[in-house]
Amino acid sequence: MNEIKLFSPATVANLSCGFDVLGLCLDTIGDEIVIRKTNKKGIYITIIEGHYVPTQTSKNVAGVAAQAIYEQLNLDYGFEIELYKNIKPGSGIGSSSASALGAVFGINELTGNKFSKHDLIAFAMKGEAVASGNEHADNLAPGLFGSMTLIRSYAPLDIIEIPTPKNLFISIIHPQVEIKTSESRAVLSDTVLLKKAIQQWGNLGGLIAGMYKQDFELIGRSLEDVIVEPARAKLIPHFEETKESAMKAGALGFGISGSGPSMFALCEGLKKAKRVEKAFSVSYKETGIAYHTYVSKINKKGIKIVSE
Amino acid sequence: MNEIKLFSPATVANLSCGFDVLGLCLDTIGDEIVIRKTNKKGIYITIIEGHYVPTQTSKNVAGVAAQAIYEQLNLDYGFEIELYKNIKPGSGIGSSSASALGAVFGINELTGNKFSKHDLIAFAMKGEAVASGNEHADNLAPGLFGSMTLIRSYAPLDIIEIPTPKNLFISIIHPQVEIKTSESRAVLSDTVLLKKAIQQWGNLGGLIAGMYKQDFELIGRSLEDVIVEPARAKLIPHFEETKESAMKAGALGFGISGSGPSMFALCEGLKKAKRVEKAFSVSYKETGIAYHTYVSKINKKGIKIVSE
Repeated sequence: MNEIKLFSPATVANLSCGFDVLGLCLDTIGDEIVIRKTNKKGIYITIIEGHYVPTQTSKNVAGVAAQAIYEQLNLDYGFEIELYKNIKPGSGIGSSSASALGAVFGINELTGNKFSKHDLIAFAMKGEAVASGNEHADNLAPGLFGSMTLIRSYAPLDIIEIPTPKNLFISIIHPQVEIKTSESRAVLSDTVLLKKAIQQWGNLGGLIAGMYKQDFELIGRSLEDVIVEPARAKLIPHFEETKESAMKAGALGFGISGSGPSMFALCEGLKKAKRVEKAFSVSYKETGIAYHTYVSKINKKGIKIVSE
Repeated sequence: MNEIKLFSPATVANLSCGFDVLGLCLDTIGDEIVIRKTNKKGIYITIIEGHYVPTQTSKNVAGVAAQAIYEQLNLDYGFEIELYKNIKPGSGIGSSSASALGAVFGINELTGNKFSKHDLIAFAMKGEAVASGNEHADNLAPGLFGSMTLIRSYAPLDIIEIPTPKNLFISIIHPQVEIKTSESRAVLSDTVLLKKAIQQWGNLGGLIAGMYKQDFELIGRSLEDVIVEPARAKLIPHFEETKESAMKAGALGFGISGSGPSMFALCEGLKKAKRVEKAFSVSYKETGIAYHTYVSKINKKGIKIVSE
């Protein structure tokens, strides 16, 4: 096998009460990535389409992630990477992680699958660090495993796959504004009230239990973030109104995707998810800010091979 | 039915990473409670055996809890309560909640089961407040529902039943020392580091998932409390040595039961639980402090009627 084409899905991290630990995998939105062996040693980004990202390997998240796995392989050939980016960088639905994951997953496939899924996450985290300055896995894990993932621990890396109900859908609105990473970090305090932390882990426990029980009401009741959302909501234009419109339209719960500006709503069934998507549009039109909306079921498989 | 005899089980609250939200129900340890209708209106504590608790209704947790449900019933008769206390007050395995729960559960049974389980918890919380100054439900919930319970929220009260694997056992050591409630509260800070809170909710998510997956290794890895245990461990004599002895003997995880001084270890299988119990004894003998040890499977049913 000399070439592989992949679909690397968008993901929602920082899922409500699961800040830094919970992520969900989307189905209909994602980047396409082609990886091809070349005689020349090294990693080369040859095509970038869709959205702008750097072409230089050492500055491109896919390039850095690819380099991390490549260094462990000791090969006498190299790889060309073509990125067809459908996920806009900075959207809050895992643009950089889709690229980083695609690169390491593809190279692993083209070289006989020597590495475990946990290894791949570790390589891809090197790419994530280029984009965010930090080695995060909360978009990478759902992108690789599908469904919902819990990062129980980073040291050692311990990723738990959480099953999601069949009829769980997600509606997303992505306002075309930029939130600086530095700004979204600055609004978070290093400390939190113990009583708020207790509320948060009560909700996180409820959310995990709700997924196992396929109990949509419990999932809805648990989708409450009392720590991060109150701080970050003000960075996102029209946040409260958008949330209210989603809840009125029947969403189970609503929150910030990643560190924004995208916002998501979980819904029971496609019909409600589409109703919520419409409510997003109606609500956001007033702002005059450009936006995109999406509806997706939960992707149970994660990243997939389109062709070899 | 004029009289009912109940077994109200001991419970482990503040279960490791589940501070204030998670509890487990024990099987072999508990109070016996007899409740009998009397012609005289009101609630009367008539017999207390086993351990000392106040006989005056308004100062007795069972009395106050009974009074709370009694006031809602508008009856032309009253109740006598006999408490056979096997659980020592202040032991950290839910002595007061066993009494409070027994009282409200028994009166509800004797009056045609008018109240829901959630109502019973709310009444019993009034009794708990007499013992601890706060209305807690984290011992009451596992005592009533059995297995493991998650208090997702207090306002409104939302209790989630979490299934536990069949082969899960618990070993307990109760050192005969007193820890003042004021002292165990004073060592807790009102604020915690966000990064510690994230670790804690990652572990809590892992623990809940582990119970659903019946994955003992995951349960073990998740039984880590990075917030409360580091503060409270120093109040319990020989804590670190006892923990080490339990882990060496094969425990899945170890922690403080309630706010101590009892400590617990979760174990896979009775054989390991007994080995851990023995290790507790060997380790604690050195201290010269008197202690009791127990081994119990997880009680799936909660409080039960012994005879009517």
